[in-house]
Amino acid sequence: MVETGVDILLREMDANGVLRLTMNDAGRRNALSEAMLVRLGDAFAGAAEDRSVRAVVLAGNGPAFCAGHDLKEMTAGRKGSDGGRAYFQKVMALCSGVMQSIVSCPKPVIAEVDGVATAAGCQLVASCDLAVASDRAQFSTPGVHIGLFCSTPMVALSRNLSNKHAMEMLLTGDMVSAARAAEMGLVNQVVPPDDVAGAVMALANKIAAKSSLTLAIGKRAFYEQREMGLRQAYDHASNVMVENLLAQDAEEGIAAFIEKRAPQWRDQ
Amino acid sequence: MVETGVDILLREMDANGVLRLTMNDAGRRNALSEAMLVRLGDAFAGAAEDRSVRAVVLAGNGPAFCAGHDLKEMTAGRKGSDGGRAYFQKVMALCSGVMQSIVSCPKPVIAEVDGVATAAGCQLVASCDLAVASDRAQFSTPGVHIGLFCSTPMVALSRNLSNKHAMEMLLTGDMVSAARAAEMGLVNQVVPPDDVAGAVMALANKIAAKSSLTLAIGKRAFYEQREMGLRQAYDHASNVMVENLLAQDAEEGIAAFIEKRAPQWRDQ
Amino acid sequence: MVETGVDILLREMDANGVLRLTMNDAGRRNALSEAMLVRLGDAFAGAAEDRSVRAVVLAGNGPAFCAGHDLKEMTAGRKGSDGGRAYFQKVMALCSGVMQSIVSCPKPVIAEVDGVATAAGCQLVASCDLAVASDRAQFSTPGVHIGLFCSTPMVALSRNLSNKHAMEMLLTGDMVSAARAAEMGLVNQVVPPDDVAGAVMALANKIAAKSSLTLAIGKRAFYEQREMGLRQAYDHASNVMVENLLAQDAEEGIAAFIEKRAPQWRDQ
Repeated sequence: MVETGVDILLREMDANGVLRLTMNDAGRRNALSEAMLVRLGDAFAGAAEDRSVRAVVLAGNGPAFCAGHDLKEMTAGRKGSDGGRAYFQKVMALCSGVMQSIVSCPKPVIAEVDGVATAAGCQLVASCDLAVASDRAQFSTPGVHIGLFCSTPMVALSRNLSNKHAMEMLLTGDMVSAARAAEMGLVNQVVPPDDVAGAVMALANKIAAKSSLTLAIGKRAFYEQREMGLRQAYDHASNVMVENLLAQDAEEGIAAFIEKRAPQWRDQ
Repeated sequence: MVETGVDILLREMDANGVLRLTMNDAGRRNALSEAMLVRLGDAFAGAAEDRSVRAVVLAGNGPAFCAGHDLKEMTAGRKGSDGGRAYFQKVMALCSGVMQSIVSCPKPVIAEVDGVATAAGCQLVASCDLAVASDRAQFSTPGVHIGLFCSTPMVALSRNLSNKHAMEMLLTGDMVSAARAAEMGLVNQVVPPDDVAGAVMALANKIAAKSSLTLAIGKRAFYEQREMGLRQAYDHASNVMVENLLAQDAEEGIAAFIEKRAPQWRDQ
Repeated sequence: MVETGVDILLREMDANGVLRLTMNDAGRRNALSEAMLVRLGDAFAGAAEDRSVRAVVLAGNGPAFCAGHDLKEMTAGRKGSDGGRAYFQKVMALCSGVMQSIVSCPKPVIAEVDGVATAAGCQLVASCDLAVASDRAQFSTPGVHIGLFCSTPMVALSRNLSNKHAMEMLLTGDMVSAARAAEMGLVNQVVPPDDVAGAVMALANKIAAKSSLTLAIGKRAFYEQREMGLRQAYDHASNVMVENLLAQDAEEGIAAFIEKRAPQWRDQ
């Protein structure tokens, strides 16, 4: 847990409010060690609060985007008198909290995957709102190889992939190419490795140019209504639309559209 | 709200019970004005009741299938002392009601899209049971451009597309080609513009030749069971099957199949 | 119900614990007669209990994988004083029970489809965890042709396919090619007819080499969490992960991974 000088999560902000988070623990394949989970959780909580952040990119340095849990750390955690139960509970709560902090973050979050994303690393990709992969990226949920089914990754995976596609990844643990991941809906687009950062930053900047208030309203409503029946979803979304219509950014945006000019968002 | 001679929703019935509804307000890109929403709501309610209607096609005249809400009308609605709240509530309830009337209509509804379908116009496509697009059709949920997230369209969209595909459309507002819409599951097939009406009418006529009672039983059960857990869905669908088996059309249809002859539906 | 010497469900076990079930009633296109349903139900219940079974394959002899319900038997069932109601209830409960026994079976179940899978036969494919088809396989839910909507098949179908794809199959009853079924997510892969048994057995053996305990934990959790909201799903899956981590197979699997050796599962 002691950090030895290297910052394992790099933060950069561009002029347009795109916060770029880069996992920087290549020696451990950007594993979700306790330290990394704490840093990620803090970063997404911070991005949620920071009004200057308009979109978030999550990338990884080195050949692995993220290799999932830190198995050496997990094994060390077995040493308690309870065989590790309390420790595992703590790590799982921490990890599931980080994944949910991506979903609940009012700023859109885009995964930039230019390497291997496995287990909880694949879950990170599935948890982001959008994902762009390079054509050398690969994805898997390989827990079955080590007797530990990827049960928490499946929560995110099965909310993006059809049942049989998710089950194929979960039951075999096989690596899936970026092209196949795009077909299955795990990533939005696939580009050459040299283009991936550019493509992601272009996408993030396009989104960052929108009204932050509007994005926050819409992202929250999206995940809320996904869990409702159709009638309840329409009642909820209709209320959301009314509140959104009454907000200044919608009045300005609609007026700008009618007047054929660029809108000026309140917080821009 | 005053109609000036032009009928903004055309109705045609063919000999086989296919009701063709054509939005005919090309000057406003078939926007979902209050008048259009009322006409659509009445049309779907009427189709539900009219025993001679066996399937419904929804098309649009002009370069736009439907451009979504009428923003000038919405802006005019801001003038009330409440800033438009009551008016917006009314329009949203009306619009969500129209979308749900497509889903609850016992007759299958097919969208025929030969132009641009945006915002609530894209929601119309997503709300139909089936959709056929021409290869020049395009789709988007561009509310983010005007500060008004497409929160009600997302309800229909996210019940057809995977999360990342829906979020890509909602967060960027980008136009999506017909081919991409087919890949994402928003439309069933893509054909050349000259063939789209023919393809849709062939599809509608194929469906109209089935037992209307059977189609009504099945369509209703489909959307009901989608919102249930697996066990409850099977209990419900099993009951539906038993009632369907006891209906005259199933007895006739099964007998005709065994006797290798064409069935004669009760209402045909 | 009297079997005349021919075993309508063949059982073979290979050395690695793959149980191969082959529907063997080609003369009735492997219809789900009462006798076949009872045999299938018993087979999946048996596979669930039998510790030597590590994965299950479901195949069919003859040109049809399975043609769905036995319509002659169903018609004979109409003769009761209730018009068949009690009989239909019995058959539907039996059939829905078989489908759910595939989902609840703790061993992964793979459909091997080298022919036509229609109605409840298509439902069997949709109910399996994975499916491999030959390129001559075809799929449909043709109940609309006989006045009996495929309402129970739709439960399984709509948990694999997007709404519009499912509705297209259900409303038209049209045959769908194996390639299209793969695009829609109904099957995982398509291979030449000569390769289908080999591909399925290779896939089944790959899965059978995993810890059975881990597979059982994961498969159960998969279908449980699919019906939950995101937060509840994460709470549940986190608990499942903790219990899995505390199981011997995970301790062994993780240790083997760290020590770069093959794991030895407890029940192997």
